[in-house]
Amino acid sequence: MTNRILICLFFCLSFFAYLPTAQAEDGYRLWLRYDQVNNRVLLKQYQKTLQHLVIEGNSPTLQVAAQEAMQGIQGLLGKNLSHSATDIKNNTLVLGTAASSEVVKSLQLQTQLQGLGPEGYLLLSTKHNGKKITVVAANSDTGVLYGTFHLLKLMQMGQSIQNLNLSSQPKTSHRILNHWDNLDRTVERGYAGFSLWDWHKLPDYIDQRYLDYARANASIGINGTVLTNVNANSLVLTEEYLLKVKALADAFRPYGIKVYLTARFSSPIELGKLKTADPLNAEVRQWWKDKVAEIYRHIPDFGGFLVKANSEGQPGPQNYGRSHADGANMMADALAPHNGILMWRAFVYDNNVPEDRAKQAYNEFNPLDGKFRENVMVQVKNGAIDFQPREPFHPLFGAMPKTPLMMEFQITQEYLGQGTHLVYLAPMFKEVLEADTYAKGQGSTVAEVVDGSLYNRKFSGMAGVSNIGTDLNWTSHPFAQANWYAFGRLAWDHALTSEQIADEWLRMTFSPNPQVVSTAKNIMLGSYETLVNYMTPLGLHHIMGWDHHYGPGPWIKDKPRADWTSVYYHRATEKGIGFDRTKTGSNALEQYAPHLQDLYGDPKTCPEKYLLWFHHLPWDYKVSSGRTLWNELCYRYSAGVDSVRQMQEQWQQLEGKVDQERFKQVKSLLAIQAKEAKWWRDACLLYFQTFSKRPIPAELEKPEHTLEYYQKLEFKFVPGI
Amino acid sequence: MTNRILICLFFCLSFFAYLPTAQAEDGYRLWLRYDQVNNRVLLKQYQKTLQHLVIEGNSPTLQVAAQEAMQGIQGLLGKNLSHSATDIKNNTLVLGTAASSEVVKSLQLQTQLQGLGPEGYLLLSTKHNGKKITVVAANSDTGVLYGTFHLLKLMQMGQSIQNLNLSSQPKTSHRILNHWDNLDRTVERGYAGFSLWDWHKLPDYIDQRYLDYARANASIGINGTVLTNVNANSLVLTEEYLLKVKALADAFRPYGIKVYLTARFSSPIELGKLKTADPLNAEVRQWWKDKVAEIYRHIPDFGGFLVKANSEGQPGPQNYGRSHADGANMMADALAPHNGILMWRAFVYDNNVPEDRAKQAYNEFNPLDGKFRENVMVQVKNGAIDFQPREPFHPLFGAMPKTPLMMEFQITQEYLGQGTHLVYLAPMFKEVLEADTYAKGQGSTVAEVVDGSLYNRKFSGMAGVSNIGTDLNWTSHPFAQANWYAFGRLAWDHALTSEQIADEWLRMTFSPNPQVVSTAKNIMLGSYETLVNYMTPLGLHHIMGWDHHYGPGPWIKDKPRADWTSVYYHRATEKGIGFDRTKTGSNALEQYAPHLQDLYGDPKTCPEKYLLWFHHLPWDYKVSSGRTLWNELCYRYSAGVDSVRQMQEQWQQLEGKVDQERFKQVKSLLAIQAKEAKWWRDACLLYFQTFSKRPIPAELEKPEHTLEYYQKLEFKFVPGI
Repeated sequence: MTNRILICLFFCLSFFAYLPTAQAEDGYRLWLRYDQVNNRVLLKQYQKTLQHLVIEGNSPTLQVAAQEAMQGIQGLLGKNLSHSATDIKNNTLVLGTAASSEVVKSLQLQTQLQGLGPEGYLLLSTKHNGKKITVVAANSDTGVLYGTFHLLKLMQMGQSIQNLNLSSQPKTSHRILNHWDNLDRTVERGYAGFSLWDWHKLPDYIDQRYLDYARANASIGINGTVLTNVNANSLVLTEEYLLKVKALADAFRPYGIKVYLTARFSSPIELGKLKTADPLNAEVRQWWKDKVAEIYRHIPDFGGFLVKANSEGQPGPQNYGRSHADGANMMADALAPHNGILMWRAFVYDNNVPEDRAKQAYNEFNPLDGKFRENVMVQVKNGAIDFQPREPFHPLFGAMPKTPLMMEFQITQEYLGQGTHLVYLAPMFKEVLEADTYAKGQGSTVAEVVDGSLYNRKFSGMAGVSNIGTDLNWTSHPFAQANWYAFGRLAWDHALTSEQIADEWLRMTFSPNPQVVSTAKNIMLGSYETLVNYMTPLGLHHIMGWDHHYGPGPWIKDKPRADWTSVYYHRATEKGIGFDRTKTGSNALEQYAPHLQDLYGDPKTCPEKYLLWFHHLPWDYKVSSGRTLWNELCYRYSAGVDSVRQMQEQWQQLEGKVDQERFKQVKSLLAIQAKEAKWWRDACLLYFQTFSKRPIPAELEKPEHTLEYYQKLEFKFVPGI
Repeated sequence: MTNRILICLFFCLSFFAYLPTAQAEDGYRLWLRYDQVNNRVLLKQYQKTLQHLVIEGNSPTLQVAAQEAMQGIQGLLGKNLSHSATDIKNNTLVLGTAASSEVVKSLQLQTQLQGLGPEGYLLLSTKHNGKKITVVAANSDTGVLYGTFHLLKLMQMGQSIQNLNLSSQPKTSHRILNHWDNLDRTVERGYAGFSLWDWHKLPDYIDQRYLDYARANASIGINGTVLTNVNANSLVLTEEYLLKVKALADAFRPYGIKVYLTARFSSPIELGKLKTADPLNAEVRQWWKDKVAEIYRHIPDFGGFLVKANSEGQPGPQNYGRSHADGANMMADALAPHNGILMWRAFVYDNNVPEDRAKQAYNEFNPLDGKFRENVMVQVKNGAIDFQPREPFHPLFGAMPKTPLMMEFQITQEYLGQGTHLVYLAPMFKEVLEADTYAKGQGSTVAEVVDGSLYNRKFSGMAGVSNIGTDLNWTSHPFAQANWYAFGRLAWDHALTSEQIADEWLRMTFSPNPQVVSTAKNIMLGSYETLVNYMTPLGLHHIMGWDHHYGPGPWIKDKPRADWTSVYYHRATEKGIGFDRTKTGSNALEQYAPHLQDLYGDPKTCPEKYLLWFHHLPWDYKVSSGRTLWNELCYRYSAGVDSVRQMQEQWQQLEGKVDQERFKQVKSLLAIQAKEAKWWRDACLLYFQTFSKRPIPAELEKPEHTLEYYQKLEFKFVPGI
């Protein structure tokens, strides 16, 4: 009998530990879980404050806001809002705009609402005819929706909702996800399954995920989505597909999200049967005008186009001897009558130009400043190469004062551990946004270029290359959800700190339990530096596996383009390592402001994180730690691996504190990350050692295999290509 | 104010209508929703009867059973089972086997358990030391798990759980899903997204879906899964992939599910670097023995192989002048020492043989009866062509008395409306299972061949080609879940009726609301006949679109193989239509028992559903309705379309009775189905009219477009290829 009792006890206790609900915590709910508030004091406060709902107006967006409020409050407070049909009572939640709501109008909020713009909102505890009410007010229905999400967030985070008086508005006007999704549902550089867009069943079938996707985006203020890959297929511009796009636009519209498409530059040839796509050709121009008009007939609020031209084989205006401005302006002219915008990517490079690839975008675009139409934004990657783990900010920021420059961040982790590494990207985003361009003297940050304030631009924007796919939890790694979240939050307000954003996200996504928040935040905040250490410390870059970009490949050479190889970038020899971008080398440095040329140009003052980005240095060069460059490289790589192991230990402390499902998932993924971090370390050190001819310091772990072993590894069916 | 009040009322009422929980009903939970029982009387009964849980033994399977019981009861009854550490109390649920549980042993159930086999179970209301208890007893832990699901099902369906005394055991020993999943995660003939198996993250990462998949299968008694496509890639047999397979096997094992793989016949060449894959070659035989031994080192309970050989370009023993038996036996010999089985598909045909394709499998396999090893099962599709909407049963059933024949059904709707048509397949499965082969006189049903009882075979099995993918609701169409469910239930007990299965599934998946059950059941039960009418009435077959098999394509001709065209099958001329398979034609009929040759051989006695399968008849031939064949064809096609419209009307009646999400989804999908049914009707009638030269009866709807319109339709990126 004792045996049975013990077993029974074992079961009962262990089951209760991980069965808080009848459903497994699968991550699908993202940060909008709305589980009941645990803190009894707060729960009572919330329940008392929010008892009735009044919403005036019945636009689809207000319906969505009301639905979110009802659903959120039902989950968080475990009760439904009462639905009195009488006047405002005590403890009513009022959602509305001054235009649609009698109550909001009567509160005389004009002054406060002024200056909040079309998307800002106000949360206010106040009185109406002597009754205590909580008001979410805005100038537009979308603003009301954003404010509703904010109010719910306060409760998810365990903050007071009494005496509210806060407002918020976005710092950039265009906050856009870029989906590199192909029409066959594969996703270029996607590591979370396949494309959400089920083109075959569109336009007739609206998948539940479309709505949940839109809702999640609205909750963090994302207001646009480019549905298709920048390596574009013109098929999406046919009427058959435009009807499908319209169905998605209709589904997203209530959530304040506009739809954009990538436009293949050669579409007039492929679809229009013209002989050319020359942007100065009258027929071509007419074809685009007609095509754009057709799109707007289906989708009156269509956002516009995103174009990758004359880059990596994509067609573009240079095929016809025209400039990027010629190409962009032609499309912009077609879009302008409909208030559409044109986003033209600066990610261009040409293998025929033997110059440092880091210089090419600047060389092509800087001379075009002032030549673009008003509704063109040039979309610039954060750095000049290609979403490497760490790059200095792109020298175009600050160098095109007459052109609105959109930031293009990569949320999907192409070079950052793909679907399995825990890397919180807010610190990387922030590092770039806070970088000082010195374009108008000290304090001219990239963020101020991007938000349009430095040059007083009308449009401003941030684009994030999406990490979203069909995986049940949307992003493959449960913590990769934080990067989607952080992108949205920073696009709204780049002044937020990485820690604030992590704090918000953790409380909503996992638990407001202080130990969970503090431990997981610690893991998150160190994770970016950790990854840089075990992949590309000290300014190394572009040394990953060929083509699929999975794992290390510093030995990659002899490929169709020199700038697709690793040896092009690290330039290791027996004498030293690094890419000399100073005057003695490619002088890419001259694309930055004079102050930065001085700072970065001297290895003694160059931040060590960019050391080998700008300098080729001997293996025995002494770095700030007093170690030789070779030894420092060994230490940095090893520190990266050690940090992942610490992340594992820290996560282990949360067993039983977070749900069992995600606890196990993250634990498994951290084990993969630890294995792969060591793979990176071992492979890179063994390879670079063939040049340095120096030993790995004895106190550091020895590589597990030979260099040949790592070089021979082959990978089939790596996701994301 | 009145305006506001009205709006408030509108919102409050409409919100409450579709916000029963804080989460959208996305279909992910399948038939295991465990929402709280609505009926108060039943709820009280259940709550009273189930208050404590005692489970003795701690195998992973018993842990899973206990977890399911706890989770299910928490959801259904809104309370946790108490966890007393004392002796059995009144109202305790006891789960266990006689071997592991003192309580079960003391109940002296030997007689009742005898004959239930290793997977059967017993549900019993009884007393133990004077205490009222409910017992789930079995001879194995897996049996206990199956019984636990049954107990939960009773409550999900709103049935009494008092005075229980019921038992159940499977009629077939191997109940297996076949996944036609490729290693790049595409799924051949998959219409619900992509493959669940994320090979890249295996073996280290166990996706939550693997466990939820296993759980769903266990709940309907499926005990095996073939992970990979029958068009096989030998890569899955490399050690790298076997470790991934092992991880899945470990994940599925607690749920009683064995893992199987497809084995590419040429693997000894591709992986072993041998010069041949000749099954009689000693090196080849040794290679397979070693490979199988390697697999079993990783997966001690590995199920075995499924092989498609010498069919549609796959390599096989005939490449070396050997027979299917030579090939199968060679692999079976390698598997036998490990108790593995070999499933060899009879779906073979050879374009070089100019005979009726319907005859080829029989011609190749019938002579091999008795030549297979004991651990070989020959897996036979339900019909002789290829999963057509309707086929007579495959003539091999009943024609190989010395060989266990597995049934291969297609759950995925390759030719049955793919991902968007509501077609409940149980009636189709049942039609085949209940067909009388007359092999041992009247009453020798296909089911008795398949379950092994007709010829007293040791092994028996049913395979279902899976319709499961990464779609949030697993199967694309919410009602396609019913086909997964029905396959499992019929593999367990082919005597269940289609209606019983639909009833179970609806109550658990949607609602026990009588109107919902009765209306939706009505829709389901008529849906198969409806589809046959609008696609291939009166025995027509294989007239679908080329390659992707999407939509109608009766005009398909001039392809690499004659038997991949439509004209090969319908043989329409100005004189008539149909495939003469009687003595005056291909005489495929002679492969059936003499009684059936007589019955089917005369168009007057041939069931009309098979009329044009067996006979070529003039357009003016009079059918039983009194109409001419041409007019009957017009009426059948039109009736199919009309029935879909009736399905739409019926579903509309359930608005507000089922959750809003799935209501809308099904409504949208029915609209697609109605459109496509009409497309089938119009395209087929217009095409056949070019031969019949007769008008479509005036009282029937006119086709919407011209024949040329339908013939010119092109489809890109159709899923499933």
